[in-house]
Amino acid sequence: MHNFNAGPSILPREVFEEASRSVLDFNGTGLSILEIGHRTPLFQAVLDEAIALLREHMGLLPEQEVLFLHGGASTQFMQVPMNLLDETATAAYTDTGVWATKAIKEAKLFGGVDVVCSSKDSGYTYLPKEFTVDPSAAYLHFTTNNTIYGTQWQDLSFFYDKGVPLVADMSSDILSRRVDFTKYGLIYAGAQKNIGAAGVNVVVVNKEMLGKVSRPLPTMMDYRNHIENGSLLNTPPVFSIYVCLLTLRWLKKAGGIAAIEKENERKAGLLYDTIDALPLFKPRAAPEDRSRMNVCFTIEDPAVEAEFLALCKEEGMVGVKGHRLSGGFRASLYNALPYESVVALTELMRSFAQRKG
Amino acid sequence: MHNFNAGPSILPREVFEEASRSVLDFNGTGLSILEIGHRTPLFQAVLDEAIALLREHMGLLPEQEVLFLHGGASTQFMQVPMNLLDETATAAYTDTGVWATKAIKEAKLFGGVDVVCSSKDSGYTYLPKEFTVDPSAAYLHFTTNNTIYGTQWQDLSFFYDKGVPLVADMSSDILSRRVDFTKYGLIYAGAQKNIGAAGVNVVVVNKEMLGKVSRPLPTMMDYRNHIENGSLLNTPPVFSIYVCLLTLRWLKKAGGIAAIEKENERKAGLLYDTIDALPLFKPRAAPEDRSRMNVCFTIEDPAVEAEFLALCKEEGMVGVKGHRLSGGFRASLYNALPYESVVALTELMRSFAQRKG
Repeated sequence: MHNFNAGPSILPREVFEEASRSVLDFNGTGLSILEIGHRTPLFQAVLDEAIALLREHMGLLPEQEVLFLHGGASTQFMQVPMNLLDETATAAYTDTGVWATKAIKEAKLFGGVDVVCSSKDSGYTYLPKEFTVDPSAAYLHFTTNNTIYGTQWQDLSFFYDKGVPLVADMSSDILSRRVDFTKYGLIYAGAQKNIGAAGVNVVVVNKEMLGKVSRPLPTMMDYRNHIENGSLLNTPPVFSIYVCLLTLRWLKKAGGIAAIEKENERKAGLLYDTIDALPLFKPRAAPEDRSRMNVCFTIEDPAVEAEFLALCKEEGMVGVKGHRLSGGFRASLYNALPYESVVALTELMRSFAQRKG
Repeated sequence: MHNFNAGPSILPREVFEEASRSVLDFNGTGLSILEIGHRTPLFQAVLDEAIALLREHMGLLPEQEVLFLHGGASTQFMQVPMNLLDETATAAYTDTGVWATKAIKEAKLFGGVDVVCSSKDSGYTYLPKEFTVDPSAAYLHFTTNNTIYGTQWQDLSFFYDKGVPLVADMSSDILSRRVDFTKYGLIYAGAQKNIGAAGVNVVVVNKEMLGKVSRPLPTMMDYRNHIENGSLLNTPPVFSIYVCLLTLRWLKKAGGIAAIEKENERKAGLLYDTIDALPLFKPRAAPEDRSRMNVCFTIEDPAVEAEFLALCKEEGMVGVKGHRLSGGFRASLYNALPYESVVALTELMRSFAQRKG
């Protein structure tokens, strides 16, 4: 099988193997990881190591807190403005795709929103780079990688001199490439791509940003409560956090972010080179904004497109169908996807293109 | 091992075994349950069957929707009033323990709260039954079982003629006994006791109650969005829902709620009989309000208490220590705990009491 799913997506084989064993017997305790209390030293050790590994991989500052929260990135769309955007203030948002649009919609419930740029008119095929941000903005929100349209900010330093705190949705490319994570006021990411399994969300927040809005916050929405309780404000998604730990360990053994970045460049390079070499396949994103995580492309003739999809299925390649909003194909090349899977896909593309003349 | 954890807690052995296999290969697909997309027919079948089994076990009406949500019961403490309590309205809340208190605190952020009764002064050792509810209340909220203090409403029909919609936190006793679930406007329960693994929350809501508050609701907080999207508004906690499915199947094979109720009565009966027969051990809850899920008791001398706890540990009995707020011992006897575990515990209690003279 070759798993190109966009998320939940492939994780390393050794993560599956160890997680499977721990569902029967966690660390030789005779207990399943599913039946251990979240306030036991057993689980505390899991949580502590997962947080320490994330801090190490990301090179975080002491004032940047790491939280494992429920609710997925979609909950962050509301939780971020609830905590950071006062009713009378304005936040700047970039509109680069579906997830950005959802984040903008939620922010409007809490304060002013200045959409500083949008590539909606082009069908989100590129990333708009000509815009200014009002220095009084509470923060500037952007999506580092757009899963559905296959675009990704290549040079994030573009944002670093905007003069306002940065908030980034990194759900689909976190830990896939070197980033100066210390530049961010808040980072959030659903775990189910490069961090671990679905059901948990990582939030990295500079605690100096908190406590400045005037609205009363529900207990579960206030980041400060989660910080104070070390991500144990209520029963956490124990197993999902455990799978994050296993994946973070694997990443360390694989050489960390710098090493995986090279591998990701190699995988995306091979696939884009193949698309560019075969006139049958059309790339979707502007060349300078191409995502290394989600490679989107099409075939002009829908009948031929359907034929290639059927062929992928026959060959044990899953998750190659594009999102319903963008159509065509999408191959997601997350950290755990082996280079060999990209080789298999590109070989299939070449032989198919040859047959189609 | 005998696992008396209060939650996350013991699940049936066959659930652990099948979950473990599916982490390696789900249903012979060659894919892990952790890497399948949530919008695939594979996962849709899991979700559909889990919902159908819950409907069947609970005997729900067509207008009662079943949702699998993120965030745990603690998120429901805010989500319930956000959806059901207008700013100018009042909801009635019973105060029977820590979780009820937390629910009250969140509700006050959204509208009026009338705390119709409280047993706080007694240390929550009993359930207060003398109170009236204003018929104009938006709803009456109560906790069916109080995990920390070991009390449980024995006769829920007590609430059924109060003349207002009922909202119940059933986190710690759902599916453990026959209940007329059709009497409820809204039921919520963290899964990690009798439904499945931590990381998911079951909400059963009568959709006729929704859409009546005037405040704008964040997308993720509006139950109607989750209903419309069949619990797939965003990436759900896939594995946690799958473990629910396996546990619900097990419950059906075990004869359903009626059969498990008898078994739960047998387990709690044996433990309470033992406590009552041994003067060394003191029961915590008022006899008429004793929980069949969480049996709380103490030993007067702290040194002897510590000695018995150490003995439990030696004998492979975990989770017997009481909650930090109530102290003493707590043995949780959820559906999956075998009768033999209660036999082992009570035998240990008898021999210990004998030694202590």
